[in-house]
Amino acid sequence: MPGPPAAVAAARLAVRRWLEDTGPAPDSLVLVACSGGADSLALAAATGFVAPRAGLRAGAIVVDHGLQDGSAAVAARAAEQCRELLPTGSPVEVQRVHVPAGPAGPEGQARAERYAVLVDAAQRLGASAVLTGHTRDDQAEQVLLGLARGSGARALAGMPASRSFGGTRILLGRPFLGGRRSRRAGPDGGITREHTERVCAELGLDPWSDPHNEVDDYARVRARRALQLLEDELGPGLATNLARSADLLRDDADALDAAAQEAYRSLGAPPWPVAGLAALEPAVRTRLYRRCAREAGSSGTDLTSEHLLAVDALVTDWHGQGPLHLPGGVRAGRGEDGVWLRGRT
Amino acid sequence: MPGPPAAVAAARLAVRRWLEDTGPAPDSLVLVACSGGADSLALAAATGFVAPRAGLRAGAIVVDHGLQDGSAAVAARAAEQCRELLPTGSPVEVQRVHVPAGPAGPEGQARAERYAVLVDAAQRLGASAVLTGHTRDDQAEQVLLGLARGSGARALAGMPASRSFGGTRILLGRPFLGGRRSRRAGPDGGITREHTERVCAELGLDPWSDPHNEVDDYARVRARRALQLLEDELGPGLATNLARSADLLRDDADALDAAAQEAYRSLGAPPWPVAGLAALEPAVRTRLYRRCAREAGSSGTDLTSEHLLAVDALVTDWHGQGPLHLPGGVRAGRGEDGVWLRGRT
Repeated sequence: MPGPPAAVAAARLAVRRWLEDTGPAPDSLVLVACSGGADSLALAAATGFVAPRAGLRAGAIVVDHGLQDGSAAVAARAAEQCRELLPTGSPVEVQRVHVPAGPAGPEGQARAERYAVLVDAAQRLGASAVLTGHTRDDQAEQVLLGLARGSGARALAGMPASRSFGGTRILLGRPFLGGRRSRRAGPDGGITREHTERVCAELGLDPWSDPHNEVDDYARVRARRALQLLEDELGPGLATNLARSADLLRDDADALDAAAQEAYRSLGAPPWPVAGLAALEPAVRTRLYRRCAREAGSSGTDLTSEHLLAVDALVTDWHGQGPLHLPGGVRAGRGEDGVWLRGRT
Repeated sequence: MPGPPAAVAAARLAVRRWLEDTGPAPDSLVLVACSGGADSLALAAATGFVAPRAGLRAGAIVVDHGLQDGSAAVAARAAEQCRELLPTGSPVEVQRVHVPAGPAGPEGQARAERYAVLVDAAQRLGASAVLTGHTRDDQAEQVLLGLARGSGARALAGMPASRSFGGTRILLGRPFLGGRRSRRAGPDGGITREHTERVCAELGLDPWSDPHNEVDDYARVRARRALQLLEDELGPGLATNLARSADLLRDDADALDAAAQEAYRSLGAPPWPVAGLAALEPAVRTRLYRRCAREAGSSGTDLTSEHLLAVDALVTDWHGQGPLHLPGGVRAGRGEDGVWLRGRT
């Protein structure tokens, strides 16, 4: 008996490895977040095969953003496909989300709403994990967007293959990104978008193609095109290499966050003695400032590396400069007790 | 009396800040490495103005790689221009280098030879620093090339604005990259290639244009074109943002190298007890392995993150696997004393 086609086997292996790495409780429910696109259909197919063999139950949540005409029909069709791909009787739900106009723009808002709906459904259904179909290409695009903004290691590290979901014990998983162990075991390190399209073709699935992929003013779409241009210029395998850089930078960011946490334990809340700060590495100091500025009320997205370098100049380039104004009404300065940092209240 | 044109003033400011940040000894000699291109001519012009006002002597070394017909004439012309741009009597030398065919390719070989000639000239003339005209665009291209290879933070950090030169006390400086202090003080953070072209236009200098910039098979040239495509797609300021990411990652790499050094002091040479390794962050462990593998004979360019993750699996995913073969005949394995790593001898 011949095995499954190569792309199908690779997608199943990615899901199996993710389950092995994270170990959901036996017989617990693993949900697939499905849009009907090639990525999430391939994920539903792989999960429908692997989960029951791993002693787990499977299910799917289809999110209808209602951003486009006919989105309800797309969602209904995706749900129908999930019912065919998952074991008989698996829970499959369509959730309609309302995306209000807001500062994050339709893409950011849609993402926030989608995650809220997924957490809610996962809690209601008692799921142990929610899986999304993000591919190595998504990861590479995320890294490129971070670079275009001049971000540090944490943003360049892209998305982790698993993290806990909004303060719950539910895991958010992205099996197609590959993980530390998967990287070791396989030469390719993760599943690409083209790969998921092959899975759909091999299984006779007809994925939905998002018309937004053709619209210019979505940063993600521009990043996708930029990545393609870069591959043409710098050679194939760029997406995989970008994703590898992201994996390495994630380890770096974890280590430096841990060092900043250790520094916080040792130095305590501000004010901090200047000698104590000066003994830290600059990369640890700036992370300590970031952490405390966020606690004091600065939003993580408004706080730039320029702000943190200005705080650091209170240590490394002190010439009596006045207090600094950080986002969210947070102020920082240097006094007799050392460097202080405090919120509005 | 009107001041100098804006581009000229900015280039001078960049050189002045570099000299303030690094503080060469009074009356010492600062050499400019000049090719006759816009970058290094702008640097020679700025250094010729700033150095005497900072109590320093200036000079120039023109390197003739002999890779192209007419390179001797290009070098002679560059030397002539340097003599006009530097104070009367400043040492200006042309050095011809021979680039043998070798594994690093003409570009890598040429760079190695150029640096050897520059160190030699700097030592002979008793210089305290050698400055090169690398711009923010060069930095951004370096970062892109690192990403295309899937490199870690150190490679993505690009070139530092100053480092000591091949184990000597001579500083290699790149004033146009901007530095930590310069970043704080200026909104643009460094001088771009276009900027150096404006400097030349404003000063009536006629820079030499490298015909290699039009040749396809130089990685650097492909990176230059890729960067242009990315700017078109993701918006202006990309080079500056990439360079900012590089600056942040350099701080990260410095901190993690220091942590690995600390781990080495505490754990000593291999074999290392498994519990001691497991207590370290993965990003620190892999740097510890890299350091020791290089000491044992692996070349830094041959040693990949895959090799280091395979060593790390001896700690994190031990299932009795056999010794690993690392580049340069280095082997690593796990025994009763913990994880060992040793060279051929």
